[in-house]
Amino acid sequence: MEQRTALDLAAEIRTLQTAGHETALRELLEQLHPADLAEVLEELDEADRAATLQALDAERAAMAVEALDVDDQVVVLRLLDRRRVSEILSHMSNDDVADLLGDLPPEEAGQFLGLMEREEARDIRELLQYPEDTAGGIMTTEFVSVPAVATAAQTIDLLRRLAPDAETAYYVYVVDEQGRLAGVLSLRDLIVAPPETSVGAIMNPNVISVTADTDQEEVARQVSKYDFLAMPVVDAERRLLGIVTFDDVMDVLEEEATEDIYLLGAAGVEEDVDILRLGPWKRATRRLPWLVLLLFGQLVAANVIAGFSSALEAMVALAYFIPILAGMGGNVGTQSLAVAVRGLATGELSRRDIFRALMVEIQTGLLLGVSTGTLIFLVALAWQGIPLLGLVVGLAMTLSMTVAALVGTLVPMVLERFGVDPAVASGPFVTTSLDVTGLFIYLGLATVFLRTVGLTLAG
Amino acid sequence: MEQRTALDLAAEIRTLQTAGHETALRELLEQLHPADLAEVLEELDEADRAATLQALDAERAAMAVEALDVDDQVVVLRLLDRRRVSEILSHMSNDDVADLLGDLPPEEAGQFLGLMEREEARDIRELLQYPEDTAGGIMTTEFVSVPAVATAAQTIDLLRRLAPDAETAYYVYVVDEQGRLAGVLSLRDLIVAPPETSVGAIMNPNVISVTADTDQEEVARQVSKYDFLAMPVVDAERRLLGIVTFDDVMDVLEEEATEDIYLLGAAGVEEDVDILRLGPWKRATRRLPWLVLLLFGQLVAANVIAGFSSALEAMVALAYFIPILAGMGGNVGTQSLAVAVRGLATGELSRRDIFRALMVEIQTGLLLGVSTGTLIFLVALAWQGIPLLGLVVGLAMTLSMTVAALVGTLVPMVLERFGVDPAVASGPFVTTSLDVTGLFIYLGLATVFLRTVGLTLAG
Repeated sequence: MEQRTALDLAAEIRTLQTAGHETALRELLEQLHPADLAEVLEELDEADRAATLQALDAERAAMAVEALDVDDQVVVLRLLDRRRVSEILSHMSNDDVADLLGDLPPEEAGQFLGLMEREEARDIRELLQYPEDTAGGIMTTEFVSVPAVATAAQTIDLLRRLAPDAETAYYVYVVDEQGRLAGVLSLRDLIVAPPETSVGAIMNPNVISVTADTDQEEVARQVSKYDFLAMPVVDAERRLLGIVTFDDVMDVLEEEATEDIYLLGAAGVEEDVDILRLGPWKRATRRLPWLVLLLFGQLVAANVIAGFSSALEAMVALAYFIPILAGMGGNVGTQSLAVAVRGLATGELSRRDIFRALMVEIQTGLLLGVSTGTLIFLVALAWQGIPLLGLVVGLAMTLSMTVAALVGTLVPMVLERFGVDPAVASGPFVTTSLDVTGLFIYLGLATVFLRTVGLTLAG
Repeated sequence: MEQRTALDLAAEIRTLQTAGHETALRELLEQLHPADLAEVLEELDEADRAATLQALDAERAAMAVEALDVDDQVVVLRLLDRRRVSEILSHMSNDDVADLLGDLPPEEAGQFLGLMEREEARDIRELLQYPEDTAGGIMTTEFVSVPAVATAAQTIDLLRRLAPDAETAYYVYVVDEQGRLAGVLSLRDLIVAPPETSVGAIMNPNVISVTADTDQEEVARQVSKYDFLAMPVVDAERRLLGIVTFDDVMDVLEEEATEDIYLLGAAGVEEDVDILRLGPWKRATRRLPWLVLLLFGQLVAANVIAGFSSALEAMVALAYFIPILAGMGGNVGTQSLAVAVRGLATGELSRRDIFRALMVEIQTGLLLGVSTGTLIFLVALAWQGIPLLGLVVGLAMTLSMTVAALVGTLVPMVLERFGVDPAVASGPFVTTSLDVTGLFIYLGLATVFLRTVGLTLAG
């Protein structure tokens, strides 16, 4: 089964559906993991998708729908009749339903909510209040909580009664009379404990939690630090509101990494848009605004060169080194940027002394500048035989690399301080501004030196 | 407790240790999560670290050590006496011990193995056989398996006896007489089942597994796709060898994202080196080789310009547009690269038709080239008033952007095909080669046009 691709399976399902082999179809669908079913659904056309989702039992249909992207979830649900939609929604996790409805126009979201049980609809309305990228926005309200006086046996009984709805019951939370979080215990603690022990006696009272407004990236960082299966979310009075489960955390980690990589590449897409499905027109229109911005940046560079045209006319060999000076600062800046953006994303950098971190990078830039500056001085001297040119090129390289290390580190730090995603300081933007800086340093130095030495070495 | 930073806690621990308040110290340490303890250990000096690890019970000491980086684990273990090391190692997960010993010189690893129980030492020696970045390299051998005829009650009894060693017992695996994996059930399935049911009757027989040689990135992709707490690892005969747990998968996801970002930035560090702890000399020596390589690339660009010096002498305004033509292709290439590298990392791209994906990107590049090319034609015309210059600049822009989209997509795809991490095609390398290509197209076109039209518009 693992060997068969989603394409193979989709073909098989189409064949079985056309031939009307309902039993064989059901058997095939039975064997598939919901995540694989989701991939197969993506390959089917509308009629076959609807038929497949009808052939599945409601719980598995719901799990397959959960594994789809939100865009596809909407497409799929619009194909089905109201009764089926109602069944699927009631079997989906609250947080997934909230994500789905949050993407719909309010009127359609209201219609879907109308198909759900009143209590569930109320929970989901509450979840929809939280911003998407916070703990509240990714938590589910389906958790298991008991009072401290409950026994292990009573708690196991409760779990038995709640199943199979309590799919997120990795932990049982212990709450006091006011619903405030008092402790936590795992299913293993429950199984291992003597049946008549109270959960208050076996729970871990040092329970770590986040508040509903905590940024999802911070939640992911903590879950990953503590290796939790779920993180409890509380309000200001420590009342338990919901839990964020590890699978959502893995999605957040992937999303944030994708976002950082796209932003560093200025690819012009949000992390939750599947760019690989977009055609050339849509891709081009998303990326064009960024490129036009960068083009204006480069036009500034062109103006810098034009402003120093007399130096270039005096020594045309200066032009040969333009891409080197424009480019190498950008390369150092990109290195510094990659280190800073990732350090901020994993929280490694935020835990350290910011000023010291900045100084270390500047010193690194200076060391890199001196070594490559010496190298390019020798190359320029050997190639063109003009000591002045070599000196200008080497000195400009040293200076621009030091500036680049400073800029590449400082910009994401400042953005983070002001609450902006540091990856917005995307590679191309930092490189373009460093292009301009590098050229300015280079041609400025050249002009000063040419004037001071008073030489006209024009070809 | 969550409000106190690791620095505060370290200061408190030092004070308690100096004052000899052992009970207060123990109480403080009791409350801390092992992951927080690990952060505190990082802030303490050697003597305080050793004293703290002696004051903890062995199980919590082991959990704190597990949460440290491997480098710090080695430092910490070398501080302790043989008995304490033996206790800590026996409480650590097998996979963590194997990671630790794999980083030591064979002689020292042998000494540590000598401190462990014979059976555990044998398991760890076996784990050390597998390459670090495979399922075998990140799995643990501490899993719970039962025959299909065992009842739910017997299995719960078994779990009770194995606790607290079976920390990774999220699932119970069902095996046949030959030890081959036959099914899986979760703790919830066990709790919910009537006690006398056989596990064979309640297990899920469609169990998904990986082989020991599966790449860790592929394992992470599957665990994240299926939302598993643990993935079973089997040999060629489907015999159960171990399990990879979700916490290791989260580490792999973070590691791989860090690696991709560093490689895209050519930052010259492996994902498991904590670059933020390195001083300027070490950072500079790691990054210098990459920069020198890039410098040689830029020297090729310089040579291209020098090769077309007669065109530049004929029309110095051509030089103004050098950074634009050198830079904009690189920007489009970086966008394409970000999309392709991330698409390959998440597996999204590999599932699609490679040729179609390439064609869509090339068309995107062409569209972007035509639009920015038209824009720069108008700008050049308005600024310099030379139609020929505008035409050369605009045409070169269109061509080089199309080439950039092709290169940015094709290079990572080809690398992936040959088993090389596609992120090796780092941003700076692709940009530098596109700098050269862009300049060649631009100055080549300029020379041809200048010759054909036969104009000498020199200033």
